Amino acid sequence: MIALDGHGADGGVDVVIRGGELSGLPVRVFGPPLTAIANDEEPARAARSRTDASIVAAARAVGVGEADALVSAGPTGATLAAAVLHIKRMRGVHRPAVAAVVPIPGGRPTLLLDAGANVEVRPEHLVQFAYMGAQFMEAVHGVVRPRVALLSNGEEAKKGTEDVVAAYARLAEDSSGLNFVGNVEGTEVTRGAADVIVTDGFTGNVALKLMEGTASTVTGAIRDAIKSSPLSAVGGLLIRGRVAKLREQIDPNATGGAILLGVRKPVVIAHGKSSAEGIANAVRMAQRAVDEQMVEKTAALLESAGVLRSVAAASVAQPDD
Amino acid sequence: MIALDGHGADGGVDVVIRGGELSGLPVRVFGPPLTAIANDEEPARAARSRTDASIVAAARAVGVGEADALVSAGPTGATLAAAVLHIKRMRGVHRPAVAAVVPIPGGRPTLLLDAGANVEVRPEHLVQFAYMGAQFMEAVHGVVRPRVALLSNGEEAKKGTEDVVAAYARLAEDSSGLNFVGNVEGTEVTRGAADVIVTDGFTGNVALKLMEGTASTVTGAIRDAIKSSPLSAVGGLLIRGRVAKLREQIDPNATGGAILLGVRKPVVIAHGKSSAEGIANAVRMAQRAVDEQMVEKTAALLESAGVLRSVAAASVAQPDD
Repeated sequence: MIALDGHGADGGVDVVIRGGELSGLPVRVFGPPLTAIANDEEPARAARSRTDASIVAAARAVGVGEADALVSAGPTGATLAAAVLHIKRMRGVHRPAVAAVVPIPGGRPTLLLDAGANVEVRPEHLVQFAYMGAQFMEAVHGVVRPRVALLSNGEEAKKGTEDVVAAYARLAEDSSGLNFVGNVEGTEVTRGAADVIVTDGFTGNVALKLMEGTASTVTGAIRDAIKSSPLSAVGGLLIRGRVAKLREQIDPNATGGAILLGVRKPVVIAHGKSSAEGIANAVRMAQRAVDEQMVEKTAALLESAGVLRSVAAASVAQPDD
Repeated sequence: MIALDGHGADGGVDVVIRGGELSGLPVRVFGPPLTAIANDEEPARAARSRTDASIVAAARAVGVGEADALVSAGPTGATLAAAVLHIKRMRGVHRPAVAAVVPIPGGRPTLLLDAGANVEVRPEHLVQFAYMGAQFMEAVHGVVRPRVALLSNGEEAKKGTEDVVAAYARLAEDSSGLNFVGNVEGTEVTRGAADVIVTDGFTGNVALKLMEGTASTVTGAIRDAIKSSPLSAVGGLLIRGRVAKLREQIDPNATGGAILLGVRKPVVIAHGKSSAEGIANAVRMAQRAVDEQMVEKTAALLESAGVLRSVAAASVAQPDD
C-alpha cells in the first residue's frame, strides 16, 4: 500500500485523490483534517513539530510499516525531512539524494542526482549517489547496465572541482560492475549521453531548472515567431498535432517526478503542478520500486561495492553525516 | 589596433582574416608561420614555453602596448593563460573571469560569469565578478544600472553553498550603487531575470553548456516532430522564414562570444565555430571595450566599492590568488 500525501499538489486534494484512484493501486490518502507544510517553513523543524501535517503522518505510516512507500507533491524539503525522520536513512548511507527523472526527446529518460537535497557534498557522497542511481534505473526503469557519468566542465578525468576529480578516481576503480562512463559536459545531458548523471545538489538543482527554463524559453520563442506572420501562423496550425505529441512525450507528468534515494522505503516526490495523471504515475513508480525491491537491491549493491559508510567512521561522524 | 589570433577558428585562418576585414576596424592578424596551441595541451605550460604560438605572440603584442586588445577563437584555457602571462591581471583583482554573453530571445543578452576560468572560487572572487560584469554590461552594452544576481538553488538569501551565501551577504551590503537583485534560480536565466549572473566557473561552465545543449535538443526534437508527417512538413515550410529569423537573433555568432574580465586590456574569446561575421563581431566588441575604457572604469568601480584585494592580503597570498 502507498501512503499518499493529500496536500502539496497545486490542484489541491481533489487532484491527489483522483490520481490515487487513477493509478489502480492500493493507496491511502493523508488529507484533511491534516494540514500542509508550506514552502516557507523550515523543513526540519516543521517535520519534527508539525504532527498535524499530512506529510508527517504519511511518512510515519511508512516508517512503522503500515505502508510500503510514500508519494508527495508537496515541498521537497518537507518530504525529505519527514522521510529522514520517520523512514530513516539506509544503513551505511551518508546522505539521501533527490534523483530527478529527466525526459529525453526520442529516447529513454536520464536520471539526474542529486537534484537538491545536499548543497555541499564530499566525494564519498557522489560515489554512493552513482550506485544508488544505477540501481534505481536498473530496478525501476529496466535499464541493463545503466551508463553512469559525473557532470563536469570537461570530459577528462582531471576536469572538475577537487571533489569531482576524487569521485572520478574512485568510480574508475570500481570492481563491482558499475558501468562508469566518465564525465559528461552540460551539452551532453539532454542528448542521453548517460542513464545516470551524478552531481552535487547545488549544481543538480541549477542544472535541472536551467533545462526546464531553457526548454520553455525556446518553445515559447518558436511559438511567438510562428504567430508573428499570417503565413507562418497557418504553418503553426499544421504542425500543432505533432508538436503536441512531442510535448506529451517530454511532459514531466509522464515521468512520475523525482525519487528520494538512500532511505529505507521508496519515497517519490511528484511535481507540485502534477495533474491527476502525474500523481498516478508517481504512485506507479513508487509501487514499482516496492515490487522490484529497489531498496534491498541498493543495499546489496552498496555493500558489494564496498562503499558503505563504515561503522568506525559512523561513530566519529556528525549525526547528519 | 586589435591583435587577432589567426589560429583557433574551426574554419581556419581564412575565416579569421575575412572576419578581421569585415569588422572594418584596424586589426593585426597573428597567423602562420606562427602555430596553434591545441586543445589538449596544458595551457599554462604552453603559454610559457610555446613562443612560436600565435596566441602567445598576439597576447605579448597587447602586453607591450603594440595593440589595444586581443581577440582569439582558440581554446579558452590557452587564451586565459597567455593573457594572464603577458597582459596581466588588473591590480587588486583576485582572479580573471570568463564572461559569456548569452543571447535571450526577444530581449537583450545576459552576461554569465565565471563561465569556466575558475573551477573553485571564494566569496571575494564572486563579489569581484559581480562588479566586473556590471561594468562590462554598462560600458560595452550600454545597460543602465545592470541588474546583478547570483545563480543559486533558491531565491532566499540563505540558499546556496556557503560561498554563495557569503557573497550574497557582501553584495547586499554594497554602498557603491551596484544594482544587486539577489539570487536567481536556473529557471530564470533564459528569461532575462538579470543582466549579469554571477557564479563559480564550474557551475557557470555546466550552465552555459546545458543551455546550449537543451536549446539544440529542443529545436532538433521539434524539427523531427514536424518532419514526421506530410501535413506538418508542409507547416514546417510555412514557418521556416520566421524560425530562421529567430535563429539569427539567438545565434552565438551575433554576440561576439565571451570576454575575459579582470585583465589589463580587453580580451575577447570568440566561439571556435565562429563564422567570419562572428569574428568581426568579436573584434567590434573588443574595440568597443577599448573605446569605452572598460578596464579603467572597472578599476575605478572596484576601488570605490572597496573590494580590491588589499596590498596586505596580496603579500601573503598565493601568486595566483
